[in-house]
Amino acid sequence: RIMRPDDANIAGNVHGGTILKMIEEAGAIISTRHCNSQAGEPCVAALARVERTDFLSPMCIGEVANVSAEITYTSRHSVEVQVNVMSENILTGAKKVTNKATLWYVPLSLKNVNKVLEVPPIQYTRKEQEDEGKKRYEEQKLDRLETKQRNGDVILPVINPEPHTVGYSQSSLIHLVGPSDCTLLGFVHGGVTMKLMDEVAGIVAARHCKTNIVTASVDAINFHEKIKKGCVITVSGRMTFTSNKSMEIEVFVDADPFVDEPRERYRAVSAFFTYVSLSKEGKPLPVPQLLTETEDEKRRFEEGKGRYLQTKAKRQAQMQQAAQ
Amino acid sequence: RIMRPDDANIAGNVHGGTILKMIEEAGAIISTRHCNSQAGEPCVAALARVERTDFLSPMCIGEVANVSAEITYTSRHSVEVQVNVMSENILTGAKKVTNKATLWYVPLSLKNVNKVLEVPPIQYTRKEQEDEGKKRYEEQKLDRLETKQRNGDVILPVINPEPHTVGYSQSSLIHLVGPSDCTLLGFVHGGVTMKLMDEVAGIVAARHCKTNIVTASVDAINFHEKIKKGCVITVSGRMTFTSNKSMEIEVFVDADPFVDEPRERYRAVSAFFTYVSLSKEGKPLPVPQLLTETEDEKRRFEEGKGRYLQTKAKRQAQMQQAAQ
Amino acid sequence: RIMRPDDANIAGNVHGGTILKMIEEAGAIISTRHCNSQAGEPCVAALARVERTDFLSPMCIGEVANVSAEITYTSRHSVEVQVNVMSENILTGAKKVTNKATLWYVPLSLKNVNKVLEVPPIQYTRKEQEDEGKKRYEEQKLDRLETKQRNGDVILPVINPEPHTVGYSQSSLIHLVGPSDCTLLGFVHGGVTMKLMDEVAGIVAARHCKTNIVTASVDAINFHEKIKKGCVITVSGRMTFTSNKSMEIEVFVDADPFVDEPRERYRAVSAFFTYVSLSKEGKPLPVPQLLTETEDEKRRFEEGKGRYLQTKAKRQAQMQQAAQ
Repeated sequence: RIMRPDDANIAGNVHGGTILKMIEEAGAIISTRHCNSQAGEPCVAALARVERTDFLSPMCIGEVANVSAEITYTSRHSVEVQVNVMSENILTGAKKVTNKATLWYVPLSLKNVNKVLEVPPIQYTRKEQEDEGKKRYEEQKLDRLETKQRNGDVILPVINPEPHTVGYSQSSLIHLVGPSDCTLLGFVHGGVTMKLMDEVAGIVAARHCKTNIVTASVDAINFHEKIKKGCVITVSGRMTFTSNKSMEIEVFVDADPFVDEPRERYRAVSAFFTYVSLSKEGKPLPVPQLLTETEDEKRRFEEGKGRYLQTKAKRQAQMQQAAQ
Repeated sequence: RIMRPDDANIAGNVHGGTILKMIEEAGAIISTRHCNSQAGEPCVAALARVERTDFLSPMCIGEVANVSAEITYTSRHSVEVQVNVMSENILTGAKKVTNKATLWYVPLSLKNVNKVLEVPPIQYTRKEQEDEGKKRYEEQKLDRLETKQRNGDVILPVINPEPHTVGYSQSSLIHLVGPSDCTLLGFVHGGVTMKLMDEVAGIVAARHCKTNIVTASVDAINFHEKIKKGCVITVSGRMTFTSNKSMEIEVFVDADPFVDEPRERYRAVSAFFTYVSLSKEGKPLPVPQLLTETEDEKRRFEEGKGRYLQTKAKRQAQMQQAAQ
Repeated sequence: RIMRPDDANIAGNVHGGTILKMIEEAGAIISTRHCNSQAGEPCVAALARVERTDFLSPMCIGEVANVSAEITYTSRHSVEVQVNVMSENILTGAKKVTNKATLWYVPLSLKNVNKVLEVPPIQYTRKEQEDEGKKRYEEQKLDRLETKQRNGDVILPVINPEPHTVGYSQSSLIHLVGPSDCTLLGFVHGGVTMKLMDEVAGIVAARHCKTNIVTASVDAINFHEKIKKGCVITVSGRMTFTSNKSMEIEVFVDADPFVDEPRERYRAVSAFFTYVSLSKEGKPLPVPQLLTETEDEKRRFEEGKGRYLQTKAKRQAQMQQAAQ
């Protein structure tokens, strides 16, 4: 579809969140279709996880986004989908890869939302494809367990914060979940949640560096718990780490089922977003360093540095591999 | 994309206007891409006309709309695009043709919006394709001249109208044209206009028969004049004809360039929409007959009857042809 | 949240209606949460009234709106919420107060929408707070009775009106109430209604003075009757008064429950909006004087003048108090 002014920031760059939302919609369609391809209980595929994804090149207002999706692996209860996004300038014909994302879906019964159904297996053309898929499946399963632990954390307000401290840029927004945010099962689309997360992370980044910013990458996102129609969701973000030219922001999503339900507020999703700052000509700018004050902030900064160095090392290894 | 509650009426049927908007977006993308495929002045394709289209089967919330578009003819300054819409129930896998539409686009220069550029010719696989396309081109050109004449008409308000009269159901809405309604040239997308027209026509139909209604077909729509960002548009509809099971509604779009421009209000588009009334089970219901009072209303009723009988005759001829 | 191009007019000023909608959403969330804080029948808070509110400074595209809400008084069946809106330019860090609004909500049972539930009392830190709240409660109750009386009024169409007359700028729009416009109870959010009212009032103001206009204030708005999903609402506006630099517009909302219900069209809301005209540099411009023709128009002009002078006197008294 054609990118509109509302999909973009004031410099004309399409929000990462808009792209994440399109990716998730494509993934939900292909995996729901697949899971219903055999006779049996009807189901809706729910997003369980998005693997780390890089925004390779910016998309602009007026360009057309081409989204394609393919199922690359199925386990007994989950589907792996590979989604590619290309931006196309229909005036010049130029096409660029914007994103490659890997998403995991789980089929939930339309009659009983707590029942996970079985996934029809796909055919692999080569045995290696299945083995590699299985390896990716095991890896993400492990990673999901780990992130569950860091979820108790809360963002507390800071009074009169100094510029470039964590408290200075931290932000949150609340959103009342409406019908068009939801799937047939009455739960929020993963893509809607990711769009809100990107919006908050973008505000944190812009408050910190006071320039035009764009999403560079999103760390793996796990969707621990479903969010129901009628909930209020609070999306909060705080900066955790800065390198010379990038900022890492941690985002939490908490759901508050305040009507009709005895349940307490709960953590539904959390993730790390990385942003870069751009000059008016679209060149990366240096980023003001984050000032850490408390012990927790210092610890999170070191953890962020760890993730940053790990990603950098991985990317260099890939480039060397590609160069050979 | 997946159809959401916001795309549909309370009975769950997707608005005809939502489908028209998707059709037009697909047409605009393919024709803009084609017109820029050769080196030369960059341009944006503007919608000039949509041929008569039937809504063959209703689309529902949760279904996926598959839209495909193909260029079928090019004249020196215009492009004919054929767009097909299929609805897919991803739970059952069932697919149905919802719409087939033919649209005409004209390439306008990005630098000078009043300059119509030349269209790169397409290759035909058979000579007959070109001849048939040329015939369609000549026919629509003739028809566009004719409809220009009935454009002086205005909808006058009626005080305390009786039920089932023209004045009772006539309706109008105003809309301030925002940035996301517009193309790169700063003019309203044809699809946005059609969606508003369908909204008004649907309200006229529902006011008349006080039941759940759906769009059955749209007569050829000509886009006489562009509408600029910042205009206020008034979309007005009145019922012109009823058969036993259908209602014809005439819709006008007037643009009011009230800020910063000396120009007067002008008629930008006009068209006929046909609606049917549905029971809770989705079966067509009889429609209360339209009460015509003035000479003009009686004349328009007879003209509507003429269009109705002509369409019916055409459809029967097609069915006989298909049966042979 | 960040203000987008669609939230604003062509000069980049965010519509007053967008701000009113955000205010109402915050109020609805905090009061629904409060009313469900004690065990008992689940309920949804419905907007009953918004006190007069001034737009203190304009908000622009790209700025972040910070909305905070606090419960300041509870009667047996209603909740008073104070909402503050700040605009923040995240590039410069500059913050400005945009709005302070006071809203009254009433808890309606989720099971039986016609049942008003009891509100859990809040704790006051000082006895005076409770007394002042009670005084505000009594005042608004009185005012609601008064406004019910002027509600029989209808806006009649005028044929070929002269510029600057009431008939020349009066406008109306119709809107089919969709699922996203509604609360969990299936009734239109007060904020959605206010946004449409501001849209119509803005078009009336722009038609009158043909310049860029912004909302300066909104008089107290009473929500007499709920509006159900599937209704068609007609929002009509007419100018009632002009001072040298401001225009007052009266707006009516009528609901037409045309499907499935025997009920007649009814008046749901009415209110006065005040607009100012701005030059390209954002300075207030003189406004063309309203030409009144009928006795009713002259009477309404005098009443508007009364409200204008009263507000002016109040503001001067406040400024003197503040200066002491």
